[in-house]
Amino acid sequence: MALNTQVDADHNAPPTTRVLAEHVANHPSRGWDDAVEHEAHRTFMNWLGCAVGAAHHEAGVAALRAVQMLQPAPQAAVLGRGERVDMAGAALINGISSHTFDFDDTHLKTIIHPAGPVCSAALALAEHIGANGRQLIDAIVLGIDVSCRVGNTIYPHHYDRGWHITGTTGGLGAAAACARLLGLDAGKTAMALGIAASQPVGLREQFGTMTKPFHPGAAAQAGLMAALLAREGFTASQRAIEAPRGFAQVVSTKYDWNEISDELGKRFEISFNTYKPFACGIVIHPSIDACVQLRAKGVTPANLARIDLRVHSLVLELTGKKEPADGLQGKFSVYHGCAAGLIFGRASEDEYADAIVTRPDVVEVRRKVVATVDDSIDEASVDAIATLVDGSKVHVFVEHAIGSLQRPMSDADLEAKFRGMSDAVLGAEQTGRLLEACWAVGKAADVKGLVKLTHRDE
Amino acid sequence: MALNTQVDADHNAPPTTRVLAEHVANHPSRGWDDAVEHEAHRTFMNWLGCAVGAAHHEAGVAALRAVQMLQPAPQAAVLGRGERVDMAGAALINGISSHTFDFDDTHLKTIIHPAGPVCSAALALAEHIGANGRQLIDAIVLGIDVSCRVGNTIYPHHYDRGWHITGTTGGLGAAAACARLLGLDAGKTAMALGIAASQPVGLREQFGTMTKPFHPGAAAQAGLMAALLAREGFTASQRAIEAPRGFAQVVSTKYDWNEISDELGKRFEISFNTYKPFACGIVIHPSIDACVQLRAKGVTPANLARIDLRVHSLVLELTGKKEPADGLQGKFSVYHGCAAGLIFGRASEDEYADAIVTRPDVVEVRRKVVATVDDSIDEASVDAIATLVDGSKVHVFVEHAIGSLQRPMSDADLEAKFRGMSDAVLGAEQTGRLLEACWAVGKAADVKGLVKLTHRDE
Repeated sequence: MALNTQVDADHNAPPTTRVLAEHVANHPSRGWDDAVEHEAHRTFMNWLGCAVGAAHHEAGVAALRAVQMLQPAPQAAVLGRGERVDMAGAALINGISSHTFDFDDTHLKTIIHPAGPVCSAALALAEHIGANGRQLIDAIVLGIDVSCRVGNTIYPHHYDRGWHITGTTGGLGAAAACARLLGLDAGKTAMALGIAASQPVGLREQFGTMTKPFHPGAAAQAGLMAALLAREGFTASQRAIEAPRGFAQVVSTKYDWNEISDELGKRFEISFNTYKPFACGIVIHPSIDACVQLRAKGVTPANLARIDLRVHSLVLELTGKKEPADGLQGKFSVYHGCAAGLIFGRASEDEYADAIVTRPDVVEVRRKVVATVDDSIDEASVDAIATLVDGSKVHVFVEHAIGSLQRPMSDADLEAKFRGMSDAVLGAEQTGRLLEACWAVGKAADVKGLVKLTHRDE
Repeated sequence: MALNTQVDADHNAPPTTRVLAEHVANHPSRGWDDAVEHEAHRTFMNWLGCAVGAAHHEAGVAALRAVQMLQPAPQAAVLGRGERVDMAGAALINGISSHTFDFDDTHLKTIIHPAGPVCSAALALAEHIGANGRQLIDAIVLGIDVSCRVGNTIYPHHYDRGWHITGTTGGLGAAAACARLLGLDAGKTAMALGIAASQPVGLREQFGTMTKPFHPGAAAQAGLMAALLAREGFTASQRAIEAPRGFAQVVSTKYDWNEISDELGKRFEISFNTYKPFACGIVIHPSIDACVQLRAKGVTPANLARIDLRVHSLVLELTGKKEPADGLQGKFSVYHGCAAGLIFGRASEDEYADAIVTRPDVVEVRRKVVATVDDSIDEASVDAIATLVDGSKVHVFVEHAIGSLQRPMSDADLEAKFRGMSDAVLGAEQTGRLLEACWAVGKAADVKGLVKLTHRDE
């Protein structure tokens, strides 16, 4: 029978659950500077665009059909569509859609995509309970702070073990955001975090299937329900995150508790959020950027003989698929990403269509890409040398890709990205009004007007 | 950034997900002997009694209120009550209630309580879709086979790590049961298992709070939704259970794949299910049984000086609480359990009422109990010596407690236990009819009649 083999357990962890709960419950509304406030709006807008853009993808459609088997009440919007479902179902479906294109935000220190779980839960709840925009943005900033601080605590060992950290920390962030929206005190917020802590969602084995975007959706739903349960007096351990058999020590062999408390209430992790210019995993963005730059330097499919990439080991580990058979597999292929960058000068969702991934000229270019792991190359960087058919070489070194903290997308870039996803779903005119509503959401008397703009007229 | 540190990963695991999916989808209806069939009815009845008995406990009530915030459709019964909610909410609430008293079933090899997740999901779905009793029992046998075989594969390391194995394996069992009820083929059943694999629920840190019974409830809900998603074409990894970054290798450092395939379709793990005579963790049943036997030998609170117990280490690790402050804490106190056994000759839910746990004469007896870990004592056993005030000693050695596989509760014992929980909720007459319906459920044209008998007339 089982004995406790956790001989190395940390029995003296600080009261992490309580510290986070007090932060979430008691931090003043808009208790941060303008830069944080603006980043929250960028995070929200980018997330919303992703969710609208993928609303008609088969993953979101299948999830909607499954939720509809529950005959849900029309409490909250399925973004980018006409249907309404209960708020838990909306959190699930919108969370799935927002991550379907792998085009959402990234907290680079942890590779967490924080908005999916947090914003999907918060908007669905805010819509149903009639919260105002200020409350929504407060909840998002604090929820993402919880997700990412917990992520900082356990990364990288947790991710290395095989967990999809977006889902596992996302339930805590979603619970925090919803607890804040519900106005729970610190005690009940701790219970919400505790209930969420028992439900880490996400295995990396699922990458390349619909269950990858399911992870942030399920985390959103779990976090929302955790907050509703806590509101009704449901109890959990006061030390659910930090105890020897609590979340952090069970799902990771590393737990740096200082990551929870350092500059808490002063530094907000949403400040370090980034947005993807390319619709695929962040690790291959430097490679795609390099190929876009090679293109700008005159390299074309016609004059190209081969491209030699020197990359961080994670690039091949995560995205080493040489012969992707469809768009989804293409997301896990640095080779296809490079071909898209070189041929089209971009890698938006359109360049991950099945028909593009299998197009003969695209296949031909991707087969000219040779990627080699080089331990001297940082994960944020790539070194690319194109050898042309005439034997000449073109060299590009990308230290930080476009979309990184060092080279962030501008507000205009983000709007263009949003339009690239939303115009086809909602039309250009409605998309324009939705963009305006996103930038103004923190001042909105409620979120219903904004949500209405995400409905496609069928 | 993260590298794969799973240098010891098993990249050659057999196709466990697929093997289980084919078993669930293709095993013939009632493809087992009468003993298995009868055990399935005992399992179902015991689970139902526990759920009815705890239906008005604050944990289930809080969960019901949270679910009602979703304005659920009346698809399925909240057992022991008048309300109806959507089937996912019913799976959650009934799963919580069935484990609230810590009085449910136990698969001793893994300490899994398999019925909570599996029966809660299966009955809610069966009721809504109009399945017959044969289909329900088939789903329960196969669902429990999946939970317990996966549990066998990863136990004990998984449990040692801090996971509540009932919840973590329960989602897979619930998904299997619901996939079977929905008639999914092996391919879609594999997807259901895969979606469930990404959602292991349950941390041991939660023991002593409402989140412990939440675990089987959340697992039931997750498994049910996984099956609904798979039905709609949602995809997951084909190797979600066995891959290096799949379920088993992420949540455990031990994975014995033979436990999946050995005698699959011939040996059914439900055969090894047991039912608790005492409303607390299985590890202290030998101790309580010993004290009931001491009582039968004439030991009384009045003539008792002290009781010396020699116990397996897990007893004190899990249930070493010396001064429980309420009924819930009492469940984690071998000392209170012994006091109840000696004073009342039993330890049903009534003996775990707050007022009993704190009653002065009960406190006085529990403080006379001295438990010592003895490495020579098996987990199933206890050695108890009562020293009386006159200096004489009474010795009891329990090799296997009542309720174990070696000394199983009879059908009559189970009925008495059921009545002890249900009579007060549904009345004796209705409880009698419900018992009849339980024994006959495998032959019922649908489960609606049985479910109706679980409704308390308000």
